Amino acid sequence: MTIFPPGLLPEGLSDRLPPQAEASARLARRVLDTVATHGYERVMPPLAEFEETLTQRLKSMRAQDLLRVVDPVSQRTLAFRPDMTAQAGRIAATRLANAPRPLRLSYAGPVIRLRANQLRPERERLQVGAELIGSDSVAAAVEIVNVAIEALQAAGVTGITIDFTLPDLIDSLAAGPLPLAPDIIEAVRTELDAKDAGALTALGPDAAAYLPLIEATGPFHAAMDRLEAFNARIGGAIDSRIAGLRAIAKPIGWDITLTLDPTERHGFEYQNWFGFSIFAEGFIGEIGRGGSYAIARADGTDEPAMGFSLYPDPLIDAGFGGESPKRLFLPLGHDPVRAADLRREGWQTVAALSEGEDGAAQRCSHWLNGADPTAY
Amino acid sequence: MTIFPPGLLPEGLSDRLPPQAEASARLARRVLDTVATHGYERVMPPLAEFEETLTQRLKSMRAQDLLRVVDPVSQRTLAFRPDMTAQAGRIAATRLANAPRPLRLSYAGPVIRLRANQLRPERERLQVGAELIGSDSVAAAVEIVNVAIEALQAAGVTGITIDFTLPDLIDSLAAGPLPLAPDIIEAVRTELDAKDAGALTALGPDAAAYLPLIEATGPFHAAMDRLEAFNARIGGAIDSRIAGLRAIAKPIGWDITLTLDPTERHGFEYQNWFGFSIFAEGFIGEIGRGGSYAIARADGTDEPAMGFSLYPDPLIDAGFGGESPKRLFLPLGHDPVRAADLRREGWQTVAALSEGEDGAAQRCSHWLNGADPTAY
Repeated sequence: MTIFPPGLLPEGLSDRLPPQAEASARLARRVLDTVATHGYERVMPPLAEFEETLTQRLKSMRAQDLLRVVDPVSQRTLAFRPDMTAQAGRIAATRLANAPRPLRLSYAGPVIRLRANQLRPERERLQVGAELIGSDSVAAAVEIVNVAIEALQAAGVTGITIDFTLPDLIDSLAAGPLPLAPDIIEAVRTELDAKDAGALTALGPDAAAYLPLIEATGPFHAAMDRLEAFNARIGGAIDSRIAGLRAIAKPIGWDITLTLDPTERHGFEYQNWFGFSIFAEGFIGEIGRGGSYAIARADGTDEPAMGFSLYPDPLIDAGFGGESPKRLFLPLGHDPVRAADLRREGWQTVAALSEGEDGAAQRCSHWLNGADPTAY
Repeated sequence: MTIFPPGLLPEGLSDRLPPQAEASARLARRVLDTVATHGYERVMPPLAEFEETLTQRLKSMRAQDLLRVVDPVSQRTLAFRPDMTAQAGRIAATRLANAPRPLRLSYAGPVIRLRANQLRPERERLQVGAELIGSDSVAAAVEIVNVAIEALQAAGVTGITIDFTLPDLIDSLAAGPLPLAPDIIEAVRTELDAKDAGALTALGPDAAAYLPLIEATGPFHAAMDRLEAFNARIGGAIDSRIAGLRAIAKPIGWDITLTLDPTERHGFEYQNWFGFSIFAEGFIGEIGRGGSYAIARADGTDEPAMGFSLYPDPLIDAGFGGESPKRLFLPLGHDPVRAADLRREGWQTVAALSEGEDGAAQRCSHWLNGADPTAY
């Protein structure tokens, strides 16, 4: 047997050490506490499920993206969860099928996928989220977007940008006012993703009708004006989408940067009319996302839902959520009652176990001198 | 492909729903917060590691007890963690090898094993623990036992019993004052476990010398008196063990029931001189355990350590950690500033998304009538 260095961990799986581990826990707590004040109740799904039940609900996730294992107990393939949104949806559709709607659920925990990518070298990530099940209305979107922002702000995150998108916009335009032959829809989507006006025009006049969407991108209000001009040219076919976006944006504070990218679809494979990505100043890539989607009920019908998920690991790596506790060294023979009082006042105490211990080496700023914390 | 009922989960893996999921999170938080006030700092090891690195550090865990998967990235076998104590030990021995000692670490998270048993039908459990690395002294044991008790009491657990044991007692007696032939040591252990005086006597006079240990079991002070009488007969060979147990017991409050079972070894395969199990009134089986052990350093030497782990799921199932939040229904058109104030005062708010929603059905006790929460 090959002997590995004992500390070696598999690629994409790592230890979080103090103080980052504490910051991670604190950040997740603040998000969960914030969503709890808005009535979201915690669920804890298992780490693994039968592969079928997971992949049925993960439209954007292929089985080969999952970490799978044959379960010797059931003789069936289990898959570790790459995402908890689908698990919350399963719970809503099964054990909580008869709970009153709208149903508000929250969750937090590790998710794991088979392969990392360059942007996300970690295979195990922390996911924290909230799902509002039973509605995908504008009112539901207003609540979800604003709760997500409040949760991040409670966690100390500043410089937040929210990028709105309309994930099924191309499909609904192609099926209505701006018909596209089925064989070019995917090409139109690709060129809109690439914002390549030349390539889009080259796909023919039907595709070229989508050109204005490339311009309806960027800072929210200017992009919305361009989207409205486009809407006027197609007879107001997306009036309700525009009214919805304006209503969602309205209560959002001036300290949040809003942008629009109406045809963005990466990562929104299961969202329908509304999606949003969350960015924070100084971070490459999104720190969260959300939007509207449908949950398959046991009877074959769909239930509307709206939710968001945060992936706070990059924030933690950058120091968000960090706090320096006041650490107090307790010498041998200290008064334990006084020490307990000081813990209640917010001190973290580090008790000497033997003679000669150095509280300063233990990162204590003070030591208990009789009844008084005394600075080193 | 077989179609399963969509809500079916693999045996031993289950959803925790509201309010139990919230109670679980709250209980883990209170334990972690308590140990943090004593200077224990959080680590977050990954869900899976290379099988070798896990099994090297899990003396009591055989590879076939682990949920394993071949990792297509490394082409090696990964194992999901069945326990986090060994992971904390790995961190202490590697990345934190040069951190000052004693090193105090805490952790919380799901652990998973291949098979459940009748007593523990869950394959995935929550583990919360604290490890004190760099000492296995009596002072370290005093700290660990008392921090464990304080953490459980902070979580609302009452009726706590602590059962002390001396895991390597038989080995050290057999190697010293009460020699046993190597081929009967295991049989002596088995009969002491079974408390079968007849079978122990039948193993011969060397084995029969261990008979008094069967009686040194039960309520702490009476059992200690019998253990001291036994010690007197073997020339004080376990003086230090007895002094250690008395010192550990001394600061423990009258509200904790103490018992002694000096030869108990089930679950203490990696502990050495000291171990303890934690029980709570009304629960079958232990809710936690701890004791002294050794961590293998990279240089081949051992480092002493002392720790405890709690498995709070049975407590949560019984309702520990549950709290009924004050839920307030916010009708359409409510004042959002007033609602935010009420959230800060401790209310959980549930905002109407559309006309005709029933706050009472959403388990709200009150609704916001102008500026005032009004009982339904």
